[in-house]
Amino acid sequence: MSDPIAHPHFRGLVMSAQEAAAKISHGMTIGMSGFTGSGYPKAVPVALAERIEAEHAAGRPMRVKVWTGASTGPELDGALARANGIELRLPYNSDPIARERINKGEMDYLDMHLSLVAPMAWQGFLGDLDVAVIEVTAIRPDGTLVPSSSVGNNKTWLDRAKRIILEVNRWQNPALEGMHDIYYGTALPPHRVPIPIVKADDRIGQPTLICDPEKVVAVVVTDSPDRNAPFTPPDACAHAIAGHLLDFLAHEVKKGRLPENLLPLQSGVGNIANAVLRGLVDGPFHDMTAYTEVIQDGMLDLLDSGRLRMASATAFSLSPEAAARVNKDMHRYRDRMILRPQEISNHPEVVRRLGCIAMNGLIEADIYGNVNSTCIMGSRIQNGIGGSGDFARNAYISIFVTPSTAKGGKISAIVPQASHVDHIMQDVAVIVTEQGLADLRGLSPKKRAELVIGNCSHPEYRDALRDYYNRALKGAYGLHAPSLPAEALSWHQRFIETGSMKM
Amino acid sequence: MSDPIAHPHFRGLVMSAQEAAAKISHGMTIGMSGFTGSGYPKAVPVALAERIEAEHAAGRPMRVKVWTGASTGPELDGALARANGIELRLPYNSDPIARERINKGEMDYLDMHLSLVAPMAWQGFLGDLDVAVIEVTAIRPDGTLVPSSSVGNNKTWLDRAKRIILEVNRWQNPALEGMHDIYYGTALPPHRVPIPIVKADDRIGQPTLICDPEKVVAVVVTDSPDRNAPFTPPDACAHAIAGHLLDFLAHEVKKGRLPENLLPLQSGVGNIANAVLRGLVDGPFHDMTAYTEVIQDGMLDLLDSGRLRMASATAFSLSPEAAARVNKDMHRYRDRMILRPQEISNHPEVVRRLGCIAMNGLIEADIYGNVNSTCIMGSRIQNGIGGSGDFARNAYISIFVTPSTAKGGKISAIVPQASHVDHIMQDVAVIVTEQGLADLRGLSPKKRAELVIGNCSHPEYRDALRDYYNRALKGAYGLHAPSLPAEALSWHQRFIETGSMKM
Repeated sequence: MSDPIAHPHFRGLVMSAQEAAAKISHGMTIGMSGFTGSGYPKAVPVALAERIEAEHAAGRPMRVKVWTGASTGPELDGALARANGIELRLPYNSDPIARERINKGEMDYLDMHLSLVAPMAWQGFLGDLDVAVIEVTAIRPDGTLVPSSSVGNNKTWLDRAKRIILEVNRWQNPALEGMHDIYYGTALPPHRVPIPIVKADDRIGQPTLICDPEKVVAVVVTDSPDRNAPFTPPDACAHAIAGHLLDFLAHEVKKGRLPENLLPLQSGVGNIANAVLRGLVDGPFHDMTAYTEVIQDGMLDLLDSGRLRMASATAFSLSPEAAARVNKDMHRYRDRMILRPQEISNHPEVVRRLGCIAMNGLIEADIYGNVNSTCIMGSRIQNGIGGSGDFARNAYISIFVTPSTAKGGKISAIVPQASHVDHIMQDVAVIVTEQGLADLRGLSPKKRAELVIGNCSHPEYRDALRDYYNRALKGAYGLHAPSLPAEALSWHQRFIETGSMKM
Repeated sequence: MSDPIAHPHFRGLVMSAQEAAAKISHGMTIGMSGFTGSGYPKAVPVALAERIEAEHAAGRPMRVKVWTGASTGPELDGALARANGIELRLPYNSDPIARERINKGEMDYLDMHLSLVAPMAWQGFLGDLDVAVIEVTAIRPDGTLVPSSSVGNNKTWLDRAKRIILEVNRWQNPALEGMHDIYYGTALPPHRVPIPIVKADDRIGQPTLICDPEKVVAVVVTDSPDRNAPFTPPDACAHAIAGHLLDFLAHEVKKGRLPENLLPLQSGVGNIANAVLRGLVDGPFHDMTAYTEVIQDGMLDLLDSGRLRMASATAFSLSPEAAARVNKDMHRYRDRMILRPQEISNHPEVVRRLGCIAMNGLIEADIYGNVNSTCIMGSRIQNGIGGSGDFARNAYISIFVTPSTAKGGKISAIVPQASHVDHIMQDVAVIVTEQGLADLRGLSPKKRAELVIGNCSHPEYRDALRDYYNRALKGAYGLHAPSLPAEALSWHQRFIETGSMKM
């Protein structure tokens, strides 16, 4: 294999992860690569965590602010959170150790719309970016960088950071070169111009990242796989949800409200998403495209089936088996995939123009279809809003999917009132559970409530929801969207007190 | 004055409002013109209301679905609601009689993002549009229509409706011709292209509305002013809010985070908005622009002062005095104002590209800065979300303004938890009350809470908010955004029971 560091200046900066981590000090803000467990730096954060632990053991304070694309891996968020080395984390986290710290109030967390992270970093009020730590596949002879398995905010971190540490990961496939589309046309207002994407497969940028060699202070060579969470096969519940959803899409095509090849798909991750994507393999739709955040196993199957013409995203989120499949055949996949900066993959302008069909999960929805995607019982963060807001508000059809219960039936996903709201009812067009589908488009709140309760709630909770709603219809302060503040959140309180929402 | 109906085919269709209203039957869907009390039809709705009352008196059912741009006037919403003639209303209402019907559960109301009304009408699930009733200033010799004092969804209603009734209002100034910019480049996906606006003053369309003469079934001549609500002079509270806000804008310019001429302004209506706009007359900023929904009195003052170079909107919302001023000098104003379809004035793509400074009112904000713009005590609709979601999510800086209390101090505008959410905390950058300003950008929920309570809440409620928050910090299920479901909505319940949120 050829040397992935093809530029002499960068070759001279090769050092150990420990030496590189020594360039980071207490209080700094670090912009790391990484999105849904792909393309995050794997050596420097571990070395940094070790340093932080040593400093703490010596009685010295050391914490940093960590900005990324989205979620990373145990070597980054896990290691740094375990060391209690993160003062502030943005814009998304799914690491269990970091989550625990956030929910104990030990770590500050800024949960952001993923499309807005780069523009906000440019806007200035987030403060300076001291160091960027970016994983790349290779450094080219001209000094530009071949991105790895995610793009995220790497362009912005490289542009904004005072100093740069590169991790060149030999595990990443050299054939990734050419898959990426890095758009350098963004700006702050009043200098913004249209993002010139009109089809999911439009390429508007260049395949590599620009990097000022003067800012690079270290290059670390690694050889480690991405997090690559194991694939969870869809269960009966996921298949039921997928079935309802596929019937709905077929119905919309029949009604002439969707083209026969649908519109660009956006899909979250997880076993429901995989069930939907697998269902599309056997469905009636051809020549589909995806304009989404991540390429997960189900998306790969859909590409392999020939049904999906191409997929645009900002990152992979694959199982080890799927990652091996992609790596073995990268030359072929490369022409049918585009990885873009997340400010473009999630850009509201592009999502609305393309008319994405957005499919995202939720924690709970209330009877009117307000959706909580982030905070369990209203206060405990699970992961974050991620790109769901970028897509849900701007999608052609905004669909949310969820099992009707969680925790073995002790939590109802349909509640009288959402304990926290991430997606307002105006942005929630369709809700699907294994019980059924509620098409809420064009309906006023009370008509929405009838469908959400009747079609989506679990039978064990349905009567209690009807009872609440019927009493609200009689006794609410206003009958536009009837509610009873004295008991609207009582299901959550009951769960907190008894471990179950059941009466 | 020349004949405003300059086309013989249309002249032959002139008839009375009663004859025109007779063409509307029970169960029909009617697309009316009108936005913030401007440019709504003034004769046919009254005649229709009379017909509906006669039908009801005769024991026959008659109700229609009414679509508009936004709010209209007493001759439309007031008359039809009084007659109980509206089955469904969308996308916005501020009429008190209609509001009462909605909150009594007697009238269905679909509260929509204003940018999405036209695209959703095209998408098809809202059903057919039977009749369009559109006020215009004139019918030109070529059969195109000169819009009146609002554009709203008129283009879409004319395109979608099976039949068209035109009201030619002689009160509207003939010199309005040339002010409007009607863009005919929108489409359904996959055929959408970039909206080519890069500056607030870009004109991208044509000055007139296209109208298929074959669909026109009636032309009614009127001579009535727009609603033109009287101007409410800013009070001390409004001046205090404006002061905080102007200081903030000056500070942002000083920090280099805003250009010296700011960025395009979007402003809601009302006396706080007018105070802010008047404050800008005496402020340090020159060569400003506005990209907003409505041109209200304060915006006119700002234009007259020379500080505002131009204003783009979809409608006027003027006092009678200001309307007279504009009418007297329309030729001069015409070059510095553009009225566009609301799908363009509020388009998320354009709002984000231009980087609007959005200033909107609210009903309540919670300690984390989630904003309720629509539902008093969570269930009673006031007006609607209007364009606030279009602007707040996509603005460069999303600002919300409110007095810290309402109803003579019996309602706190800052509450432990919003009883309804229209704008999630990610979309709320700055909150201003007469007490002070909270710049929430880049802050995690707990830091937001400290600022919202400390800077914005009224002293009479501040201790109770601190007490709630401090107890939540100890006892919440999660400490990301601590809340206590058992009492999070207790302030609203107390108000419902006692008429005051005070303990």
